[in-house]
Amino acid sequence: MDATRMNRPGTDPPLYAQVAAAVQELIDSGALRPGDRVPSIRRASRQHGVSANTVVEAYLALEDRGLIEGRPKSGFFVRSRVLAKAPSRRTERPRLVEVGNLQTRLFDAARMRDVVPFGAAYPSADVLPAVKFARITAALARQHPRESISYDMPPGSDALRREVAKRSLEAGTTLTPEEIITTCGGTEALSLAIRAVTKPGDVVAVESPTYFGLLQLLDDLRRRAIEIPMDPRNGMDLDALERTVRRERVAAVVAVPNFSNPLGSAMPEAHKARLAEVLRAREIPLIEDDINGELGHGSTRPKVVHAQDHAGLVLLCGSYSKTLAPGYRVGWIAPGRFYERVKGLKLTTTLATPSLPQMAVAEFLANGGYDHHLRSLRTLFATQVARYRAIISASFPPGTRVSEPAGGFVLWVELPARIAALPLQERALAEGISFAPGPMFSARQRFTNFLRINCAHPVDSKLEDALARLGSLAKRA
Amino acid sequence: MDATRMNRPGTDPPLYAQVAAAVQELIDSGALRPGDRVPSIRRASRQHGVSANTVVEAYLALEDRGLIEGRPKSGFFVRSRVLAKAPSRRTERPRLVEVGNLQTRLFDAARMRDVVPFGAAYPSADVLPAVKFARITAALARQHPRESISYDMPPGSDALRREVAKRSLEAGTTLTPEEIITTCGGTEALSLAIRAVTKPGDVVAVESPTYFGLLQLLDDLRRRAIEIPMDPRNGMDLDALERTVRRERVAAVVAVPNFSNPLGSAMPEAHKARLAEVLRAREIPLIEDDINGELGHGSTRPKVVHAQDHAGLVLLCGSYSKTLAPGYRVGWIAPGRFYERVKGLKLTTTLATPSLPQMAVAEFLANGGYDHHLRSLRTLFATQVARYRAIISASFPPGTRVSEPAGGFVLWVELPARIAALPLQERALAEGISFAPGPMFSARQRFTNFLRINCAHPVDSKLEDALARLGSLAKRA
Repeated sequence: MDATRMNRPGTDPPLYAQVAAAVQELIDSGALRPGDRVPSIRRASRQHGVSANTVVEAYLALEDRGLIEGRPKSGFFVRSRVLAKAPSRRTERPRLVEVGNLQTRLFDAARMRDVVPFGAAYPSADVLPAVKFARITAALARQHPRESISYDMPPGSDALRREVAKRSLEAGTTLTPEEIITTCGGTEALSLAIRAVTKPGDVVAVESPTYFGLLQLLDDLRRRAIEIPMDPRNGMDLDALERTVRRERVAAVVAVPNFSNPLGSAMPEAHKARLAEVLRAREIPLIEDDINGELGHGSTRPKVVHAQDHAGLVLLCGSYSKTLAPGYRVGWIAPGRFYERVKGLKLTTTLATPSLPQMAVAEFLANGGYDHHLRSLRTLFATQVARYRAIISASFPPGTRVSEPAGGFVLWVELPARIAALPLQERALAEGISFAPGPMFSARQRFTNFLRINCAHPVDSKLEDALARLGSLAKRA
Repeated sequence: MDATRMNRPGTDPPLYAQVAAAVQELIDSGALRPGDRVPSIRRASRQHGVSANTVVEAYLALEDRGLIEGRPKSGFFVRSRVLAKAPSRRTERPRLVEVGNLQTRLFDAARMRDVVPFGAAYPSADVLPAVKFARITAALARQHPRESISYDMPPGSDALRREVAKRSLEAGTTLTPEEIITTCGGTEALSLAIRAVTKPGDVVAVESPTYFGLLQLLDDLRRRAIEIPMDPRNGMDLDALERTVRRERVAAVVAVPNFSNPLGSAMPEAHKARLAEVLRAREIPLIEDDINGELGHGSTRPKVVHAQDHAGLVLLCGSYSKTLAPGYRVGWIAPGRFYERVKGLKLTTTLATPSLPQMAVAEFLANGGYDHHLRSLRTLFATQVARYRAIISASFPPGTRVSEPAGGFVLWVELPARIAALPLQERALAEGISFAPGPMFSARQRFTNFLRINCAHPVDSKLEDALARLGSLAKRA
């Protein structure tokens, strides 16, 4: 290591670190904004009274932290990234972690057949109606060969949109097929929704913790995230949201009122009404991700906030990736007043949703016993989550706390504060066990001592051993 | 009509038109840029010495032309749109046409079963191996039910990537499966490529004329298009491209060297080498859309520019939507040095490509007689294009010129200069005949007297009559 990088106890930080801290201050305070060029090497060298080499070292350190980026022949620029507006306490973390790398690592691990799958929130094929679905798909392909290979241009399959509309009644709202556009999974629905109602640089309010894919999506689209704290039982803290929308120009809110990811919380009906009202008063669109809405552990299917919307401001997103066939990539969006914009964006993003998968999902919804399947799946997930909770309680370090989800199939685990999830992830992966570390669920890499466990794979002795082993690794951390 | 809107011969333009012209001048000159707020009503009223009502009228006229947009409680802003840098000659066109609306109209027409499909460039299901493909898909679904419903996370199907890699040899290049990422059709490949190598505001060089979907995509992504003229036989004018990259900071070039859309031109090998060299010298990425590469009318499959690339700067995109199954939405990209970035963007755009469609395409490529099918299809398209040409020559107005495509299945038709394609489209649609009007193929709505005809539907007496009828409508225009 270069001697100038050494920081001996009792001495000042090295010069390069002082320069880096000064520049980071400018970025944190907003004086330098994403896309801005930071002072040239020469200029910073003059400003700080240090050598050009020291400035270069400072800038490389900031680049390491993901704060700025060098561009060939142009100098260094502030990176466009997901930013929370909460005060930064830099000392908590030695460096910023990029959600993107963590996400890639998580999904790469999910592709490995020999890794225990507590990481990505996939339902296991064991709990899905694979054989029945294959029969339906095969029959449709043979009966409608031309239709199945031809484009089904946006808004997509009539049959599927009719089924989605029918089922909207159960969620307390009344969609018509004409309000719905089919998408390549829930991910495309979410991505189109955000692009339709916000533009680069806009602030989007999200739950905290929230699904890391959403944070990465906002980063990719150069939107800025502002995190609204979650109550583990009731979902988004609406007082905090109200303070935020008064203080900031929030372009949209993304929420998962029914069974948030990772907390599994369910927003009470009164809160949903208040959320709709707060946003309507300011004409702020709500992107309501209802991907888990049918996976409640209780007996009734909760209503969607969309049911409270009379202004066309709620973009309701759904998918069949958690309940039927993740690999079919069939989702949908009801974009309210943003219908034309979403339909246009869909054309230039994927042109059309695959035809045969839409036909198959529509057929399963109409005649495949979807409600019966859902009832079994909900019971199964509730049981699974309870079993995983029990194993965690028995084998994780004393002081560990575990969420009590009202729906879905993931657990949110808080380890004692001294145990960092990221190094634990490295050690667990080395032993063939995956999970999603807490910092992925925050734009500011909060939740350093949290982890999310996927419970969708039926517990067998191998999974039980692996989960207990993860507890042991945590104890030794 | 309001009296102030009347413009009697011999008098000056009305006041509102003068104000509108002054503001448009600011926009055309770049003094007001996309996203800028135009002067407030009050301020403009003072500046021009006219009433507030006149300013409002002027701004509404500019909004009609697609130049500015009103936002609730905020005023009027310059619209972000695809802009060519070529000098604007406003007098040629009474108003700007939005590609987006035209595209929606085109695809909406394509959904109507009773409209004669000369519009969207879809291959007819009649010329695709629908039944064979259905058999393959049905068998795979039954044999691999779990795999077919499960996620196949990026980079996507191993089997499909192996087949794409094998076939890259025929295009004169050598892809490995590890360099390839599968996508939801060629559209997603193109969209990810542009997002990976450019950012909002960047200038992207495109062919002129070019595929309207590309122009709309650039507009949706807030990239600016700069049009490089095409030679009808040899493709992109490389002298013009060189002048452009010297003058402008071009962030990427998008080209369809093998059988451009709409011209059907094929870039000679020497031009491809030069194109690669020009871009390499300036480190400009080339997004090479090879969607038509296998559809040459001659006996050999032309090479891709990717074969000349040793710097990882070419992002090669392909798809099976034109040759096998549009509705399966299976495409791919080999993004060179931008692999990780594209893979990351794929995760937040559609998460994964549908599994079963990938399995089916891979199986068809490996064991379905794809080469045999391609040979028939190429012969068929060459014959079709010749037949459509003959009908057009016989029935369109004297002075009409028609492209001589070297591949693909569309014709580019130049009507006599006095005949405008847009009103002709309205009249044709009213009689149930669709086509793609020329202005869609240019960010500046050039090619006002051109149209593109899809020849992928086998000629029968109904299509022949419809094409002749279109000629009659053009004659009467």
